[in-house]
Formats: sequence, C-alpha cells, structure tokens
Amino acid sequence: MREPVVKKGGFCPFCPGNETKTPSEVLAYRPNGTGRDSDGWTVRVVPNKFPALGIEGSLNRQAEGMFDKMNGIGAHEVVIETPDHDVTLADLSEKRIEDVLWAFRDRILDLKKDKRFKYILIFKNHGQAAGATLEHSHGQLIALPIVPKHVLEEMEGAKQYFVYKERCVFCDIVRQETEADIRVISEDDNFLTLAPYAPRFPFETWIIPQRHESAFENSSSQVYESLSKSLKNLLTRADQVLDSPAYNLVIHTAPIQEPALDYYHWHIEFMPRLTKTAGFEWGTGFYQNPTPPEEAAKYLKEAKVEKREAVGV
Amino acid sequence: MREPVVKKGGFCPFCPGNETKTPSEVLAYRPNGTGRDSDGWTVRVVPNKFPALGIEGSLNRQAEGMFDKMNGIGAHEVVIETPDHDVTLADLSEKRIEDVLWAFRDRILDLKKDKRFKYILIFKNHGQAAGATLEHSHGQLIALPIVPKHVLEEMEGAKQYFVYKERCVFCDIVRQETEADIRVISEDDNFLTLAPYAPRFPFETWIIPQRHESAFENSSSQVYESLSKSLKNLLTRADQVLDSPAYNLVIHTAPIQEPALDYYHWHIEFMPRLTKTAGFEWGTGFYQNPTPPEEAAKYLKEAKVEKREAVGV
Repeated sequence: MREPVVKKGGFCPFCPGNETKTPSEVLAYRPNGTGRDSDGWTVRVVPNKFPALGIEGSLNRQAEGMFDKMNGIGAHEVVIETPDHDVTLADLSEKRIEDVLWAFRDRILDLKKDKRFKYILIFKNHGQAAGATLEHSHGQLIALPIVPKHVLEEMEGAKQYFVYKERCVFCDIVRQETEADIRVISEDDNFLTLAPYAPRFPFETWIIPQRHESAFENSSSQVYESLSKSLKNLLTRADQVLDSPAYNLVIHTAPIQEPALDYYHWHIEFMPRLTKTAGFEWGTGFYQNPTPPEEAAKYLKEAKVEKREAVGV
Repeated sequence: MREPVVKKGGFCPFCPGNETKTPSEVLAYRPNGTGRDSDGWTVRVVPNKFPALGIEGSLNRQAEGMFDKMNGIGAHEVVIETPDHDVTLADLSEKRIEDVLWAFRDRILDLKKDKRFKYILIFKNHGQAAGATLEHSHGQLIALPIVPKHVLEEMEGAKQYFVYKERCVFCDIVRQETEADIRVISEDDNFLTLAPYAPRFPFETWIIPQRHESAFENSSSQVYESLSKSLKNLLTRADQVLDSPAYNLVIHTAPIQEPALDYYHWHIEFMPRLTKTAGFEWGTGFYQNPTPPEEAAKYLKEAKVEKREAVGV
C-alpha cells in the first residue's frame, strides 16, 4: 500500500492510497480489476464525509409554531474524477471525461430507485473562489427529497412557453442561436455550446443537446462520448481566455420521478467566477453583467485550442 | 480647496476636497451651510459615475427573435455616509447613522415622482468579499423600472399568508419570536433584531419594525432615530463576534407605486459574507448553512457592546 500522500494543501483524502480515509466507495471504475477501496481506480465515487443531507430516516414534516421543518434526508456523494491530484477536469483525456459522465449516470440510475428522492443535482465547484474546499478534482451529487426552487422555476417557464407555442423553448433556442451564429462558441452533431442570451455572469456558457431529451441519464451512449468532447473543448477555451478561472458547473436535468417531458430539455450551465454577487443581486434576483454574451462568445470561439497532453487513455 | 486625498487604495473620489471628481451631488447635508459640490458635508449623495442603469430615455420594449429586451432605464446613486475615509458605518454616532437613513428616505421621496420607476432598492456592500469596489463607506440606491424577482416572491408569499390567516406574516414572526426568545438578538419599542428561522447564511440577521408598515419611507421620524440605534447595535455586535466581517445589507420595502399594504412589512436583511455560494446554491436556490440561527443569536446577543468612540455628533 502506498503511503498517504501529503499535498501542498496537506493530506488529501481523494488521492490513491488514502481510500480508507473516505467512507467506503459506492462506485469505482477499476480497469485492472483491483479490489474495493484500494488504489488502481480511474474514477471513484464515495459518500461525502460531511454530508449536507443524511441517508437514514424519514422527512418527518412538522410545525414549529408558525414555521415548518423537516429532516434533511438525501444522499451526498463525491465523484473523484481522477487519481492524479495535480490535474483538472480539463486536463483529462476525452475518454476519462466520458468515464466521469458515466459515473454521474450510473449513480443517478442507482439513487433513482429510492422513491424518497425527487431530484438529483450534479455539480462541480472548481477553485477556491467557486467554493471548492478540496483541491483534488471532483464533482458532487446530491439527491434531494424535494425539487429545488430554481429547477421548478425553469420548468415552469419552459412549460408556459410550451403551452403557448407547442414547442420546447430549448429546441427553439438551439435553432435560433445556430442560425444567428453570434453567441455560438462551438457545435457538433450532438451539442451546441453557446453564450446564452442575457447571461447572469460574464462568460456564462451553456452546453445544450441538439436533440430533445429531458433527462441527462436517459441519453444514448454516443451522447456521453460527444459531451466529453464538448466539455473538454469548453473548459480548455475557458482556461485559455480566462487564465484557468474558478468555476461552478451545474447539470440542469428533469426531476427523477418525472416521465420524459416534452417541454423540458437538459443542459449544462458553466459559470466562471469572475465577479462577486453583492447587495444588488441579493436584493433583486437580477444580475449585472458587464460582458455582453456576443463578446464572450467571440473570445471563447477564437481561442486556439491546442492539443494539450491529456491525462488517461 | 483641499488637495485630493490619496489613500492606500489610491485616489478616493468620495473624500472631501474631491467633490468635483464625482457627478454633481443630488443631495448633501451641510450643517455649516457650505456650497454645493464643496466640502463641509456629513452625508453626500451623488449619481454613480458608472451607473448600472441610465436615467435618460424610455424602456423601448422589443423582441430579438424569440427573446425580449428593453433599455436599462433607472437611477443609480451612491450615498457617501461619512466624509471620513477611515471609518465604517458602525463607527458613526447614532445621529450620523440617522442622517444616512434620512438621506435614503429623501432620495426615495424624490425618485418616487418619476413614474417610470417601480421599485427603489437600497443596499450596502461592505468589504471586498461583499463586492465593494471602493473602500470609503457608502450605500447605494438603484431605482428600477420593474419590481425585482426576489421582491415579487417575498410579496407573493406574504400575500398568500395574509389571504389564509388575515394577518401579516412579519407581524406574526415578531410576536412568535419575541415570545420564544431563542433567536432574538436585541429589541426595543420600535425594532426587533433577530436571527431568522431557516436563515440562508451564517449569522444572517433581520431588523424588523415592531409596528406594521409596508414602506420604509413612510415611517415616522422617531422610527429612523430608533433604527439608527438598532443598526449601530447590530453592526457593533457583528464586528465584535465576527471580527469586522464583509457584509451585504439590503432594505426590503414595498414597491414605490403601491399604496400601504396590509400584507407586506418592510425590514432590513443583514448578511455577513462568511461562506461562499457554490454549485449547490446556483443549481437549487436552496442554501446550506452550518450555523443554527439559535447559536448565531446567542453569540451576537452575548457580545459585549462597549461604547466605542463614535464619529460625528
């Protein structure tokens, strides 16, 4: 067994050799068939040692005088994207990024069986300014007993559009933006990467599937292969143009207990943390953004994406 | 005329002697009767040199394909709270803090006359982590042509409660919290300062008027005098317990074109910036808060509020 690895940030529980310092893994890809909670993995998923929500018990909804409360029931897992402490998601090979996407999918399919859960949020905080507390590259998955406020709002807006137009608003965005071609950063047969109209943040970027699908986990395998390319492409461009920024990345997908929805369309939202939200944003729910999306798209589109040496085969 | 003052952050446009470096003042309190845009003021309000919204023109609502847009019409003003570069709002005497509150009110009453404006947001960013870009203590006022999303949500929730109970939800909170006395930080005849139930942030604190009133600017003069005491008290406690934290402070008040509302109740929300919002918050609209409000209230309540030498008489 390797010695625990000490990093510049001190001991790292996500590094190979330290598998016993995390809760026991719920999933790992081990190309060489090594044993559970030992090294030799390429992607490893473990329960969060300090979970936001606990897996045991019931919601136990109740009143406290005029207020309402319930227990924080859910699952909180960490997806360790690579055994290599010193690389970022952008550094990984397309194949390795695809593995990370498959790990997200595999965990969703497993957690979906638990009918207490209504939504599974997948996100990534990269860099201190984005709220990351551990340096070693990782994503997070939180299964929630209620559908989040932001998801409900996005679904409600999309539903209203569908009722009025009988078309998916995201499909319409894909069509209009492809034609206008002033906010598009890159595109291929499966994904459109664009600076959205009226973005909240400078260089906010969305990756939208070209074909309608409401749930991330219901995509065909070719979609994950293609998404890994689009994601690596975007992260590489952002690293180049914005000097390796801190960022948050969120997968927007339909609630897990819903059937396929004709009005909702899963996608990824990428938000580099270049500005600070302040009193105006907290007071209004509106956002001030000094960078027009057309300009952001131009910079990202024109970035030279040189082939960096990728980690993993 | 004094020489422009150079501060550790470089030249400061808010310091006395530099009045010509800002847009011309729209309001100033000048106890010694000095002239417009000269020094000798205690509080000075100027248009923001880099406004988020412009004062001239019309909204000109129009479509851009499937999207909607309009011009950014509004007012953006800066309330310079003190001539002294090196003090914070908490350092000011109660009388000087009261002057700042009167300046907010006077500007609301003036801007209210412009019927293009639907809402006036008053807020303060203190410290770099809270998004403040200038060191010199100041508040901000933004007049908006639409009622903000967060305000609509808060009003809608309060209205639903009123329809169900025929009582103001904030009045009920004041009653229940005063009786429970586990989240109260301080109280007097006019204001209750408390850690709200289910706060978004550690040490989030609200100051709520004891008597029902929907609009900040419609309060009686004795209310401003009293609020200056409650505000200084809270800021002093927070400085002591949290080591002079960066914070955002927002006045939640009714839209300016509304009559007196029986279901809405103005108040102040104070949010020290101790944690970072990350992917979970952006993805859900929910907040993870490691500090129970009962604990935050206890710390703030027990803080010894020693009389600091106050600035201004």
